[in-house]
Amino acid sequence: MEAVGIDDISIYFPKLHFEIEAFAAYRNMDFSKLNKGLGLESMSIPDAHEDAATMGANACVRLLERNNLSPKDIGRIYLGTESALDGAKPTATYIIEMLEQKYGPGSFGHCDVTDITFACIGGIDAMHNTLDWVARGGIKENRQGIVVFSDDAKYSLNSPGEYTQGAGAGAALLKHHPRLLEIEDTWGVSTHPAHDFFKPKRNISFKNMVQEVLDLAKEAGTSFTDDLADEIVKIIPQSSKKDKLLFEENALTIHKDTPVFDGQLSNRCYTDAVKNAFIDFRANAIQSGRFNPETEDIITEQWSRIIVHLPYAFQGKRMFPDVFMMDRKNTQIGDVIMKKIGEDPSADETKMASLSASEQEKVKNGYRRLISKTEEYQKFTADKFEKTQRASGLVGNQYTASIFLALMSTLEIDSNEGSDLNGKKIGFCAYGSGAKSKVFQGIVQKDWAAVAKKFNLFNRLGNRTAIDAKTYEALHRGNQLASVVKPSGEFVLKSVGGSDVLEGHRKYTWVD
Amino acid sequence: MEAVGIDDISIYFPKLHFEIEAFAAYRNMDFSKLNKGLGLESMSIPDAHEDAATMGANACVRLLERNNLSPKDIGRIYLGTESALDGAKPTATYIIEMLEQKYGPGSFGHCDVTDITFACIGGIDAMHNTLDWVARGGIKENRQGIVVFSDDAKYSLNSPGEYTQGAGAGAALLKHHPRLLEIEDTWGVSTHPAHDFFKPKRNISFKNMVQEVLDLAKEAGTSFTDDLADEIVKIIPQSSKKDKLLFEENALTIHKDTPVFDGQLSNRCYTDAVKNAFIDFRANAIQSGRFNPETEDIITEQWSRIIVHLPYAFQGKRMFPDVFMMDRKNTQIGDVIMKKIGEDPSADETKMASLSASEQEKVKNGYRRLISKTEEYQKFTADKFEKTQRASGLVGNQYTASIFLALMSTLEIDSNEGSDLNGKKIGFCAYGSGAKSKVFQGIVQKDWAAVAKKFNLFNRLGNRTAIDAKTYEALHRGNQLASVVKPSGEFVLKSVGGSDVLEGHRKYTWVD
Repeated sequence: MEAVGIDDISIYFPKLHFEIEAFAAYRNMDFSKLNKGLGLESMSIPDAHEDAATMGANACVRLLERNNLSPKDIGRIYLGTESALDGAKPTATYIIEMLEQKYGPGSFGHCDVTDITFACIGGIDAMHNTLDWVARGGIKENRQGIVVFSDDAKYSLNSPGEYTQGAGAGAALLKHHPRLLEIEDTWGVSTHPAHDFFKPKRNISFKNMVQEVLDLAKEAGTSFTDDLADEIVKIIPQSSKKDKLLFEENALTIHKDTPVFDGQLSNRCYTDAVKNAFIDFRANAIQSGRFNPETEDIITEQWSRIIVHLPYAFQGKRMFPDVFMMDRKNTQIGDVIMKKIGEDPSADETKMASLSASEQEKVKNGYRRLISKTEEYQKFTADKFEKTQRASGLVGNQYTASIFLALMSTLEIDSNEGSDLNGKKIGFCAYGSGAKSKVFQGIVQKDWAAVAKKFNLFNRLGNRTAIDAKTYEALHRGNQLASVVKPSGEFVLKSVGGSDVLEGHRKYTWVD
Repeated sequence: MEAVGIDDISIYFPKLHFEIEAFAAYRNMDFSKLNKGLGLESMSIPDAHEDAATMGANACVRLLERNNLSPKDIGRIYLGTESALDGAKPTATYIIEMLEQKYGPGSFGHCDVTDITFACIGGIDAMHNTLDWVARGGIKENRQGIVVFSDDAKYSLNSPGEYTQGAGAGAALLKHHPRLLEIEDTWGVSTHPAHDFFKPKRNISFKNMVQEVLDLAKEAGTSFTDDLADEIVKIIPQSSKKDKLLFEENALTIHKDTPVFDGQLSNRCYTDAVKNAFIDFRANAIQSGRFNPETEDIITEQWSRIIVHLPYAFQGKRMFPDVFMMDRKNTQIGDVIMKKIGEDPSADETKMASLSASEQEKVKNGYRRLISKTEEYQKFTADKFEKTQRASGLVGNQYTASIFLALMSTLEIDSNEGSDLNGKKIGFCAYGSGAKSKVFQGIVQKDWAAVAKKFNLFNRLGNRTAIDAKTYEALHRGNQLASVVKPSGEFVLKSVGGSDVLEGHRKYTWVD
């Protein structure tokens, strides 16, 4: 089989950002906890003219132009997103619509596009499938596909997820003989149905809808009173049973762009999913002959860098102790560490069975902290994770794009530092709430450094416009209608249609 | 390359249906127009306990049980749907959650699941990608995947799409050496950004929301008055600029399960997309050596059956004249037909350029009617389409599942009639609004008839419960909370969580 993988990646992020120091002041939070504790420095905030489609299209233009690609060479554009703008029409078609404004009508007329949705792992799913498609065509067909990942990682105002917000999109070119990274066809998968983070459609009655809007209004500091909902109820005629029914039962389905989530549960789901996917990966790597347990006993030691989904910068190193120890079980270094910190108390099944779920978690977290503090783990994370985190700290969560941003972060830094990564392995642990993890590995290709140098990531991140709390809030609420920074050299949302067959019809345009 | 394709398919449809004759009486429409004109006999209507997840899970159980499949043998379950229940968490995870209630917790723990969305073509996209994944593993890995397609094809009450409604789900087992159909890896694709049918998220102000609900209320026959919206407006305080802003600007994003659509535009998009995908398929089939234009000049003649997306039963034969003639250009039979009906007036580009878009369409439609009426076209559609339409007429539109239902319809009828299809080619023209078409072909395998006999499609369709207009309306509005037919032997929606981290959390259970 010929090598297939990632030839190049582009990343797009909004020109606006809200610094965590300003955010902490605005929310009266401890900046150092967010900064030193979680690695947060700033969050990307989409301007009024941006959405998942514009960000995705802007990432595509960057990729197409940098590589002088012609639309006819691109057989597919698959979008992973959890910020879709429509329930039926894929957001990927909006991206094509924009690209055809630049490359000519019909220029992507035979390009296979679609949306894939699985929370933050949707981009990896889109990549996995596109790699299969590229590989199946063989070198003869020489298929080339683009995978796009685009999200607005927006949480409710005042919610505990607010400080992890971010936004952005990326586009990866997948092909035979890639210049950056070969992705091997050995995958570890873990799937476990969970409700750690989701965006349900919610049926809502008129009565509740009134309350919902008034809550929003009060939160925004209007003078709406508590009993306004009751007053409105009073003037609604409820003379017939039908009137009453319609008023009290489901009238409309509402959708919020912000998630329902449980942070603690999500951390547990993330840790467990990655661990189970890693176990699956190890078994499959042995079966496919990619890993020989007799001679190479530590997979995570073979990985020069470890790229994981980063909902916040330090999530990777924080959640990795389980895999780290598991991977070193019955090895020399594993024994050394065990000697320092003792046996894993959660291995005592009888004792664990006598504890409640939260007590069990406490026991596990205690042992994780012990692992984290060892010199071995500290060196491990400094080597494998530290460079992957840096861009995340400046951008925040990008949902589907976060894992790709982590890869770009380290590759750009490594290329600038002249690291010797040629032929080295890179490990990936992807995660999507709901919940699924995929573990796989890539082999760095000989031309990687020249490609990575063109990412121009940190330079661009340094040239953004910081916004104040007032602007942040107006953008968040959708009340900021004019662009904060005048758009240039990008696709923008122009309008959203309002009625009949044009209702919700989004129009985009290129701004020079 | 080893043959990969469809080994078996199961289909699930609600136990309830609303007969078109009763529907026509209820809406005061001409039954014969719907029945003789479009081929409609009945529409499937989901009961109160059904949604895209239950229907998909029920189709999976049917497939797993009939084939004695073990969860560990299934490497992936990909869902194509445009009726997703969540914007981030894939509906496929709800399906897994239900299956694990039956097969044990964690039984699908290493199964790769996700959602793919592109209107009615999402199921075909899920199949296309899963075939690539199966093929890439080679016969050695012997990968097996299930593709699920599930939708509630629901339109607004009184909308022009209402009579085409339907619902249902299916599940297809994809593997090496399939018993039913090999699917060849030659695909024609046409993509053209369009707004023929979509389900946009709509930002809505409180003011408009009030109007929206009151419109719904009046439509439902309540005594709400025209000026009630104005009355409500009056009691909302708008003393400050902020109050006014919040009241008049976007407050919530609403979602409707029913689409925004333009039927005429959708027909044009469908016809054009299929034609362009067919042209692409022909070129690719020549390039891959699957079609030799020197010796086999008519592709659609080689296809024993033609399976297309059927939004209503007769859509296939109605929209095929363009492809039919194009495929017979410069052939003997093409010349014979041309002699009868004359040259295609739309080939005269100068004349066409002088006409408006709607006049152009009139010219094209006139010629299509002439083609349709020829003996050759009548025989062609009787051979290739007629059996594919029959199940559709009894079920209505199933969105993603419709094209698979059309395949099952003809295969079950053909197996009962003892048709000789072994080794014959079947052509597929898939369509998804928004808009994309894929054209590809399958080769019927030697054991097809034994597999198709077990579909038990028409027998089950004959045993459904007909509902009256009142029940239909209550189900449509979501006001029918109790099941119309007591569920048995199926997964059902039990509850939807209401607040905090449980908001919108759906719970399902198996009912014996």
